[in-house]
Amino acid sequence: MSREIPYKIYLEESEMPKQWYNLRADMKNKPAPLLNPETLQPVTYEELSGIFCEELAKQELNETDTHIDIPEEIQKFYKMYRPAPLVRAYCLEEKLGTPAKIYYKFEGNNTSGSHKLNSAIAQAYYAKKQGLKGVTTETGAGQWGTALSMACSYFDLDCQVYMVKVSYEQKPFRREVMRTYGASVTPSPSETTNIGRQILKEHPGTNGSLGCAISEAVEKAVSTEGYRYVLGSVLNQVLLHQSIIGMETKIALDKYEIVPDVVIGCAGGGSNLGGLIAPFMGEKIRGERDYQIIAVEPASCPSMTRGTYAYDYCDTGRVCPLQKMYTLGSGFMPSPNHAGGLRYHGMSATLSQLYADGLMEARSVEQSAVFEAATQFARVEGILPAPESSHAIRVALDEALKCKETGEEKTIVFGLTGTGYFDMFAYEKFNDGKMTDYIPTDEEIAASCAKLPKVN
Amino acid sequence: MSREIPYKIYLEESEMPKQWYNLRADMKNKPAPLLNPETLQPVTYEELSGIFCEELAKQELNETDTHIDIPEEIQKFYKMYRPAPLVRAYCLEEKLGTPAKIYYKFEGNNTSGSHKLNSAIAQAYYAKKQGLKGVTTETGAGQWGTALSMACSYFDLDCQVYMVKVSYEQKPFRREVMRTYGASVTPSPSETTNIGRQILKEHPGTNGSLGCAISEAVEKAVSTEGYRYVLGSVLNQVLLHQSIIGMETKIALDKYEIVPDVVIGCAGGGSNLGGLIAPFMGEKIRGERDYQIIAVEPASCPSMTRGTYAYDYCDTGRVCPLQKMYTLGSGFMPSPNHAGGLRYHGMSATLSQLYADGLMEARSVEQSAVFEAATQFARVEGILPAPESSHAIRVALDEALKCKETGEEKTIVFGLTGTGYFDMFAYEKFNDGKMTDYIPTDEEIAASCAKLPKVN
Repeated sequence: MSREIPYKIYLEESEMPKQWYNLRADMKNKPAPLLNPETLQPVTYEELSGIFCEELAKQELNETDTHIDIPEEIQKFYKMYRPAPLVRAYCLEEKLGTPAKIYYKFEGNNTSGSHKLNSAIAQAYYAKKQGLKGVTTETGAGQWGTALSMACSYFDLDCQVYMVKVSYEQKPFRREVMRTYGASVTPSPSETTNIGRQILKEHPGTNGSLGCAISEAVEKAVSTEGYRYVLGSVLNQVLLHQSIIGMETKIALDKYEIVPDVVIGCAGGGSNLGGLIAPFMGEKIRGERDYQIIAVEPASCPSMTRGTYAYDYCDTGRVCPLQKMYTLGSGFMPSPNHAGGLRYHGMSATLSQLYADGLMEARSVEQSAVFEAATQFARVEGILPAPESSHAIRVALDEALKCKETGEEKTIVFGLTGTGYFDMFAYEKFNDGKMTDYIPTDEEIAASCAKLPKVN
Repeated sequence: MSREIPYKIYLEESEMPKQWYNLRADMKNKPAPLLNPETLQPVTYEELSGIFCEELAKQELNETDTHIDIPEEIQKFYKMYRPAPLVRAYCLEEKLGTPAKIYYKFEGNNTSGSHKLNSAIAQAYYAKKQGLKGVTTETGAGQWGTALSMACSYFDLDCQVYMVKVSYEQKPFRREVMRTYGASVTPSPSETTNIGRQILKEHPGTNGSLGCAISEAVEKAVSTEGYRYVLGSVLNQVLLHQSIIGMETKIALDKYEIVPDVVIGCAGGGSNLGGLIAPFMGEKIRGERDYQIIAVEPASCPSMTRGTYAYDYCDTGRVCPLQKMYTLGSGFMPSPNHAGGLRYHGMSATLSQLYADGLMEARSVEQSAVFEAATQFARVEGILPAPESSHAIRVALDEALKCKETGEEKTIVFGLTGTGYFDMFAYEKFNDGKMTDYIPTDEEIAASCAKLPKVN
């Protein structure tokens, strides 16, 4: 007899994972190695540890240990805002009239408003442990920058954030949250780096771009004594830390003897998706159980559904290692009408390999349909979701409505990565009926992919 | 042996309160009755139910039942975002180096960002049950309006919010959250009411005020078939619904055999404070146990610490019933440099009576000290608090630091009513070193109180 399932399943602290799960160790086909952008040879630990913290460089390259201990200090911080609830969407099910059972793992109950904090605190911890003075990073809309500021503030670590200039000016709230946590926030491009000065000279009125902000943050880190660069998605180390999402989800489901049929996550660089699906994918790879796993990406930035599986630069500035991944080309920019995140041109190497191996599906959705789902969800389940998370909501609703037609009682689990409190300009556009969609043409994608580096 | 205390105590759903606690029924000196503003006689149920929903009018006048059942539909909604965690502030204690044990009841884990939702859902439910089409209300910064929009959206009830014009224009995010939940938001003063048109005629360029917005909302409700007016604080019915905060807190503490020495809450109209302290005050009144109970108010709007205990109008428009309370006069306006809420000129009649009877203390704090506490708390405990809640944080820190000096191991419980995600302009001011304090002079308060109605 299974127990009655509450609206929200919270694990006891004693049930929280004490190790991260390193999915790569269980993968039969490992993701292709990172390449040094100058030599085009696989990067070594020595090379990586010049950019990243030592322990993180090790994690980045670790393909053998299935489990890695979560240091006690990180566990302590996790306990401040975790466990995240696994919510049974009773109200949504009732409203939809679906026989499906819908669950979502809600990662928004912290001030960064998203799952990004799970990796930020780990990266800050290892930087502190290495005796560094501080870290640098870039941020667009500011979710990652906020998470990192919170983490650095906790460990008394200096945090220097390069924020895309247009966001710095138009999203002052995120900027102020970061400043409240003691971070210094610099609009990018800036006068503080060579690359920034060069860009400002060439394009005096520029609004900045994520690619430029990455290049500034990396330059600052490698040229400043006691600093390293940190990144909030795409990397193996980030997926490792984010495995806490999936592990908590799995423990909560197991506790109530619930077996999901479908696991759904939104995908930009892949940090949330990789973390959420990790233990389920592990079982699938080991042949213990089968799950339908669905990655959801924006139709305006469709790296998995329409990109090429090839080596590409991770950043537009081409200073970071190359990665084999589904990519739209490192110069690809989503159309200006694209709201919210999930605007990265590529996809985590691990997820790319899993997708190439047919172990998961990918779907793309248009943003007006995404905001429809977001609004419907908010009104019934109370939580105003982030635009990113709402991509997963869209497909969860679609799957639940399919069940209504077929009568299937599927169990659907999706990742609700965060809240949309700092995304109200996008909601305003939707509320005013002014939100538009844009799907890049085949020609656009082909043109961008034609510039892929010749290492494949 | 008491059990090890986790970072966050979450009640099981089965442990959640199924009744609200009506503190007034246990009070030896009852709060003075509301008076009809025209006759100056105690208001009757018939009069009240013309403005408020029938069941809410009954609750407003109920001084006999100690417990009132929470309807099942409301319990169901509560389960979507409650129980709220009672958090042991381990990290804060460590940072302060205090022997005190600090707990806070965190009410910010919902999209309205505060405890206001606890009463909004109750008021919306009773409106729906009565067969009403909709409700009207006013909102300043937007916390209450957001909560009510969420509640109405859940019950498919029309929600008309009059939002103080200056907030409507300067705080578009809150406005958009309300619109996302389907509410219609009108900047006040507006052309939709007589009082609004009159004010616009007399003061064409006005920014609006809460008093004017209340008057418009009440006029709209009483002049529209199938509508009633609802209010988010001050009233007895609101304190009743908010008792869920204190009851959950008490159950969680009892579960771990924790007995607080001090209970601290911020106080504007009194909805959070009244709810948080209810069960503790009940024990105190019944002589079962003693607690130190502290209300914290802004030095710029010090109704309890510097006001007069007298009958006064609840609104500047003088359309609502009169209430006996600690008041600064219904025309009192806090200085323009005052950030955040807690700007009401009076205090809940119930809390006023308790204060007059010496059953609780009141302290006032200046806002720069409040934001210092807020920032300190955010950096250690992770949550960026609302300015309102930070008043309670300030006094909790002060008490904990006193314990550090004396070596006392006091147990301190305070209410963390919500998050400050929509208050970043105020944080920006503080981060830029531009936040100032203002304490009204004795003359100002005397002048405002000189206009109290002559019914005392």
